[in-house]
Amino acid sequence: MVDVTLIGTGGLKPLPDRALASVFLRCDGRTILFDCGEGTQSAAAKASVSLANVDLIALTHFHGDHIFGLPGLLQTLQVMERTSPLVIAGPKGISASLSPLLEAAGELPYEIRLKELDGGELKLNTLVPSFSELATLTCFKTNHRVSSLGYCFTLERMGKFNPEKAKELGIPVSIWSELQKGKAVETEAGRFLPEQVLGEKRKGIKIVVTGDTAECDNLVKYSENADLLISEATFGENEQKELAEERGHMTFAVAAEIAKKANVKKLCLTHFSPRVVDPEEYLENATSIFENTVCGFDGMKITLEFED
Amino acid sequence: MVDVTLIGTGGLKPLPDRALASVFLRCDGRTILFDCGEGTQSAAAKASVSLANVDLIALTHFHGDHIFGLPGLLQTLQVMERTSPLVIAGPKGISASLSPLLEAAGELPYEIRLKELDGGELKLNTLVPSFSELATLTCFKTNHRVSSLGYCFTLERMGKFNPEKAKELGIPVSIWSELQKGKAVETEAGRFLPEQVLGEKRKGIKIVVTGDTAECDNLVKYSENADLLISEATFGENEQKELAEERGHMTFAVAAEIAKKANVKKLCLTHFSPRVVDPEEYLENATSIFENTVCGFDGMKITLEFED
Repeated sequence: MVDVTLIGTGGLKPLPDRALASVFLRCDGRTILFDCGEGTQSAAAKASVSLANVDLIALTHFHGDHIFGLPGLLQTLQVMERTSPLVIAGPKGISASLSPLLEAAGELPYEIRLKELDGGELKLNTLVPSFSELATLTCFKTNHRVSSLGYCFTLERMGKFNPEKAKELGIPVSIWSELQKGKAVETEAGRFLPEQVLGEKRKGIKIVVTGDTAECDNLVKYSENADLLISEATFGENEQKELAEERGHMTFAVAAEIAKKANVKKLCLTHFSPRVVDPEEYLENATSIFENTVCGFDGMKITLEFED
Repeated sequence: MVDVTLIGTGGLKPLPDRALASVFLRCDGRTILFDCGEGTQSAAAKASVSLANVDLIALTHFHGDHIFGLPGLLQTLQVMERTSPLVIAGPKGISASLSPLLEAAGELPYEIRLKELDGGELKLNTLVPSFSELATLTCFKTNHRVSSLGYCFTLERMGKFNPEKAKELGIPVSIWSELQKGKAVETEAGRFLPEQVLGEKRKGIKIVVTGDTAECDNLVKYSENADLLISEATFGENEQKELAEERGHMTFAVAAEIAKKANVKKLCLTHFSPRVVDPEEYLENATSIFENTVCGFDGMKITLEFED
């Protein structure tokens, strides 16, 4: 099961009831915060999300509305007596781009580990050891005005476990859970392989967070068959398509076209321009192209369960 | 008339419904923002305060909860197409302390003028020419753990204008308003002085903002006879007096004692610790010492008019 909370759904500047775009993802008790604009800690509290033990902050790019919440959050984690390292990942230039904010945050009693990403797959447990080994974060280049990334989170699901087969093969019960996770196990009774007791791999969970971007091929490629596409949709009107593209953004309709081409299950729009006061007014511009579209709002929670 | 809005009333970290301590003051259309913690721009919008044309940001000290809102606000002012210079004043070390945040904000299309203050009076129109010449900002050293200032804003009020006397003296009507403001005026008919047509100086308006501080003599000295004392009151319980002092803060009761000694008219408490969930619960600890005390809340507005 994976829980997603939209902490904020605004772009550029916050509105009284709309914080800057930030997405929180929880999987097996481990957590990722995508972007951290000014006010993220406050908006997270409003959404009843605790950031005290956040494992990874994954930044899509370094514009202020996506990172200015960092110094405040980092100091709050200190107040909360955090001691475990915090990984902050982001596109090329992360060190230089975050350096003033880290300087502003001052000395902290826990380690900040910056991880520069340049596309590609990353087993999450290589960044945060306690992350499930079945969880992968793939980042891909997007098309904003600066170095920018989108993220694809996947949680694999192993095949169904066959306890009769396990008993038949004399596999000790104590190692069943390891085999269920897809690991080979060496025991005194011999070496056992997951494929001996697991059925065909089953469909996992896939979630994509676009960050700020104009339309681009990677969006479709990496969103293919995703269960949930959380897409920027800065502009509401179809007529703003060119303006959106110029500024490295998308309209509701363009986001819906991506969702349709990528055959995703559900599209959730976010990162609304401050001028889009009520996103629902423009929703039809998306649903007419891709029906299963919702407008995100601050505090919206989406739970994704394995099928069957 | 002077309008004061408490934009945020929290200390250390924001609560879901309590932004970090920040006070907005408006006088004759000119404005001052005292402190700018993370989330100030959002909390200002909630309080229906526009920061687009803020004239002066006066910082009490450089702890994160009082300054981390700066880069976001500065970029938002850019989006709002500000071109007029912005003065940011604060205690010793302002240049070094704000440098990372200004670097994070990046290049801006308007000038930032940093003004290091070290105590003393400052006619506001020397900082911001359009400020009333009758408005003065006095800053005074306070007792926090770092270089820190409190601010005393005063608006003088000239004596009552006597139109009969002005006519009798043959003063042209066109210069009456200048004389009413206390300025001497040279005309073809001769030089006229305000004291020729104005009665005794009348009581003006005085407002003090303490910033973060433990008890200190300056608080009483500079708050003397103030119409409004906006005082930090981080801790609610009287028993926390020592703890508060250790941390450079005050309890509700200590703030009330200052108000009483300084003979202020009204005390407004702010900068509540995140543990003070409902400040009203502790209000009696203050009112039992100084009756006219209120607990500030985000968005609270206080209007001060001249007497009579």
